[in-house]
Amino acid sequence: MTNSIRTVYWENDAVVFIDQRLLPGVETYVISRDYRQVAAAIKDLSIRGAPAIGVAAALGIALGAHYSQAPSLTALKADFEVICTTFSQTRPTARNLFWAIEGMKKCFQEACAAPQAQQGMEIPPNPLLTKGGWGNLHINSYRGQALNFLKQSLITEACRICGEDIAINRKIGAYGEILIADGDNILTHCNAGALATAGYGTALGVVRAAWEAGKRIHVYVDETRPVLQGARLTAWELVREGIPATLITDNMSGFLMKQGKVQKIIVGADRIAANGDAANKIGTYSVAVLAKAHKIPFYVAAPLSTFDGAIKTGKDIPIEERDPAEVTCCQGVVLAPQGIGVYNPAFDVTPHSYISAFVTEKGLIHPPFRKTVPAVLGS
Amino acid sequence: MTNSIRTVYWENDAVVFIDQRLLPGVETYVISRDYRQVAAAIKDLSIRGAPAIGVAAALGIALGAHYSQAPSLTALKADFEVICTTFSQTRPTARNLFWAIEGMKKCFQEACAAPQAQQGMEIPPNPLLTKGGWGNLHINSYRGQALNFLKQSLITEACRICGEDIAINRKIGAYGEILIADGDNILTHCNAGALATAGYGTALGVVRAAWEAGKRIHVYVDETRPVLQGARLTAWELVREGIPATLITDNMSGFLMKQGKVQKIIVGADRIAANGDAANKIGTYSVAVLAKAHKIPFYVAAPLSTFDGAIKTGKDIPIEERDPAEVTCCQGVVLAPQGIGVYNPAFDVTPHSYISAFVTEKGLIHPPFRKTVPAVLGS
Repeated sequence: MTNSIRTVYWENDAVVFIDQRLLPGVETYVISRDYRQVAAAIKDLSIRGAPAIGVAAALGIALGAHYSQAPSLTALKADFEVICTTFSQTRPTARNLFWAIEGMKKCFQEACAAPQAQQGMEIPPNPLLTKGGWGNLHINSYRGQALNFLKQSLITEACRICGEDIAINRKIGAYGEILIADGDNILTHCNAGALATAGYGTALGVVRAAWEAGKRIHVYVDETRPVLQGARLTAWELVREGIPATLITDNMSGFLMKQGKVQKIIVGADRIAANGDAANKIGTYSVAVLAKAHKIPFYVAAPLSTFDGAIKTGKDIPIEERDPAEVTCCQGVVLAPQGIGVYNPAFDVTPHSYISAFVTEKGLIHPPFRKTVPAVLGS
Repeated sequence: MTNSIRTVYWENDAVVFIDQRLLPGVETYVISRDYRQVAAAIKDLSIRGAPAIGVAAALGIALGAHYSQAPSLTALKADFEVICTTFSQTRPTARNLFWAIEGMKKCFQEACAAPQAQQGMEIPPNPLLTKGGWGNLHINSYRGQALNFLKQSLITEACRICGEDIAINRKIGAYGEILIADGDNILTHCNAGALATAGYGTALGVVRAAWEAGKRIHVYVDETRPVLQGARLTAWELVREGIPATLITDNMSGFLMKQGKVQKIIVGADRIAANGDAANKIGTYSVAVLAKAHKIPFYVAAPLSTFDGAIKTGKDIPIEERDPAEVTCCQGVVLAPQGIGVYNPAFDVTPHSYISAFVTEKGLIHPPFRKTVPAVLGS
């Protein structure tokens, strides 16, 4: 993995991310020192994929706090809230986004309660100290140190989340690899690869682990209209790794299955309800129905941060609808006539009954998911 | 239908066709006096859709014969064979192509046997007549008249096939319209519209007939990658007719069905085996499997010329594979990385068990198709 893909990370007081809209044609890294730019990158799909969105939000929140000009803890807290709200409004479906925001909020609260922050808290100034100029300086110095401590705590936590994501994906790969047999043809939808995470990938992490284990595998890549994450991103990752792969349009997968050309299906997820219903890129549900009709195992690879224990079933998962132009155009070229209506949901929900197993960093989760998912989440 | 779409027709000793590759952006009619140009137009998808391919081949064969410089019947027969072979090698799947070629061959044979042709046959010249120049002139005149008779017979037959196609589609519409209820949302895949036929359409003919009957319907249009016949052609036809329609990417149809938003599915066909297995645009099979899973009626509208009684099951239908660039590019824009493999079958086969009924110009054909299809073909 010397040539490994790094999707989004912290470097030199900046968030660095690969602009996925330009792939596979151009490999451009954006160096951002403005959290609003990171939030916009999530919204415009420069950064996408549930785990990558979570990591980017964590790093972006740390970035926003780092460059905050707030002179006091109260002001920093206010800034922090604004920053978190900005990220929470980028995209509605990916659970990891909210998981990361909650994680950063918890980190901030804990840091605020720590002695290093308490020393600089805006307690009423000691009249003895404030009488002279040196006293004010002391207070300002204390405040500055406390604010720096809080900011550094957020950066450390965001970088931990980022690094942990790659470690989690390697565990997912190790657990999932067992499911893949030598000679398997594996179908995947959208991109649940290194680019959808901090690195290595979830569904493609399993593929990578199987390949690294020496299994002779071949991947069928759904192009995944409208945004073409399969054609642009998954194909790019697989060509780069030298893993044999074949690109198809989304409507070809059923015909492949009918011909017995697909042995396993593995996809990622954006949010998984407590009963195992899984939201993922639009088209995943169709693939799952086709998989069942052809008796092909259908696996969902995702970190536990994608599971939303607070949501009972898939019906309660909010589904983002995106710009109709994503459907009527393709990479800027107009495809459809003016005046046609458009429906453009970015995700669909696959009921748990279509899922053979989940692959997580804590191992496989098998049915009945109503029991096994809460058990893993609670453990 | 004052504003009706004419896909391909005969006018002023030329074959005129709309270049469907340029739709919906540009509406260009090509006036062709070279049969090879018509054959190339079928190959490059300027003309597509099984019935339209059949009509274009018939007109193209008449065109080739019309402009043949053959001085004798033997030479015209040789030219005719070359012309027919050229058309038979354009595309392998559409039954209507071979049906039209067979029809034109039969017409030619019958015309050759007619007295008007026999008079000019290359019987050994009468020595008395050939002695003088006037004798040769007589023979040449006879020959010329005979050759013109043959050519005119072919033009008449091709124009008959063309006109009959529209009449057949109106019958299909009238029979199929009964299946559509007021308020139905109808999903269609690819383009089985006016543009796929000489005019009016098969699957879209049913939609048109339901709309003309005053039924308040709404159509979901699969964009139909890779060539986007849905987004470019079906959407264009429906906008032009003012029929409410919504464009989706191919991978959204399952999610729509799950939400109960689709009441009927109707598609065309390129070749139907004697047992009812139907080849149609890639992705049709997936739609049919999804329809069955959601208990939604799945209808195939096609003229009897699409049925191939000589082929017992769908396994024997040849499936065309097309240029990988259709998948890796979209309207000239490169989507995928270099080095990725591609699979690009233009059609798939839907087993008869997924089909609720066929809509033909002789009425509906219901299961069991093994009995009912041969009965209609033999009648």
